[in-house]
Amino acid sequence: MGILSIALVHYPVKGRKDETIASAITNLDLHDIARAAKTYGVERFYVVTPLEDQKALAEKIVSHWQNGAGAAYNPDRGQALDLVKVMSAMDQVAADIGRHYRTEVKIVATSAVQHLRSIGFPEFQTILAAPENENRVYLLALGTAWGLADEFMESADYILAPIAGKSGYNHLSVRSAAAIMLDRIRGDRESGM
Amino acid sequence: MGILSIALVHYPVKGRKDETIASAITNLDLHDIARAAKTYGVERFYVVTPLEDQKALAEKIVSHWQNGAGAAYNPDRGQALDLVKVMSAMDQVAADIGRHYRTEVKIVATSAVQHLRSIGFPEFQTILAAPENENRVYLLALGTAWGLADEFMESADYILAPIAGKSGYNHLSVRSAAAIMLDRIRGDRESGM
Repeated sequence: MGILSIALVHYPVKGRKDETIASAITNLDLHDIARAAKTYGVERFYVVTPLEDQKALAEKIVSHWQNGAGAAYNPDRGQALDLVKVMSAMDQVAADIGRHYRTEVKIVATSAVQHLRSIGFPEFQTILAAPENENRVYLLALGTAWGLADEFMESADYILAPIAGKSGYNHLSVRSAAAIMLDRIRGDRESGM
Repeated sequence: MGILSIALVHYPVKGRKDETIASAITNLDLHDIARAAKTYGVERFYVVTPLEDQKALAEKIVSHWQNGAGAAYNPDRGQALDLVKVMSAMDQVAADIGRHYRTEVKIVATSAVQHLRSIGFPEFQTILAAPENENRVYLLALGTAWGLADEFMESADYILAPIAGKSGYNHLSVRSAAAIMLDRIRGDRESGM
């Protein structure tokens, strides 16, 4: 089975007018995605931002719950935030994965819209389960703001199909999308548990 | 097919020491769950709190995105928050459903732990799909804080199984849990979209 990892990307992402921006850290993105990652057995949750003040903010949020007042108040939260690693850029993430897992990383971009080369969740699960991909790391990249920038999508190894519900509305929060994706990939749906 | 509705319950819920409390409104709970509800075609999202100041806060959040500065900034958000109805108690919710759908409501409680009478998601889908339940409303009740109070669980018509991932960690945010539940119940998982 391939290894699943997650990155929450704050640069390069799209702004309101499709321009490439660096977005701000959102406190609850870190909490919710760390808790979902912990629930589904993901070992590393990378938070990617090139902005020094934003990196400091992310580190501060994490350490509050690991060592600060939050650790005593709610120890479960620290366990989840232990998965967070704050990085300046995706090449740092790839290097960290290389060092830790001694393997190459495949970038799996996510999007709220269908792309020409989007693959469905069952297809991605087949890739993850293939014997030749055992011990390979698949990094699920989630875009903040208006989504991952075009250049990011183009350079990704795979693009995962958008989550479609029962309506044409496709504006899930990145927190909700991350939770649903992890559940689709790793959840025990057969037993309904 | 039965009709699905959602309630985010702020009373009666458990506090840290299992005491019954009224919890505070969290801005992003309203946003994230409204957006997920809209995505999965849920028509009504009830926010339940008996506290007048908290009801006022919830109404203010909703109207900011419906008519205020938020409506111009991000019209998609208003579309989702249009689903929100702020209510003082569950009997008001039941009365509203009765008035609107002219049918009785079945309360489906959710929990992070397994109960003796918990039913799995496939079983709940079978209930929803049963011809005799067509036009009946199933209200998915989500607890804030440390979860729905025991007396709420006991009086519910059904209890849905907890979402289990790949670890023993069961501390998803209510936002994440809501998104995953809606996707399990209503998502188009076969196509992986």
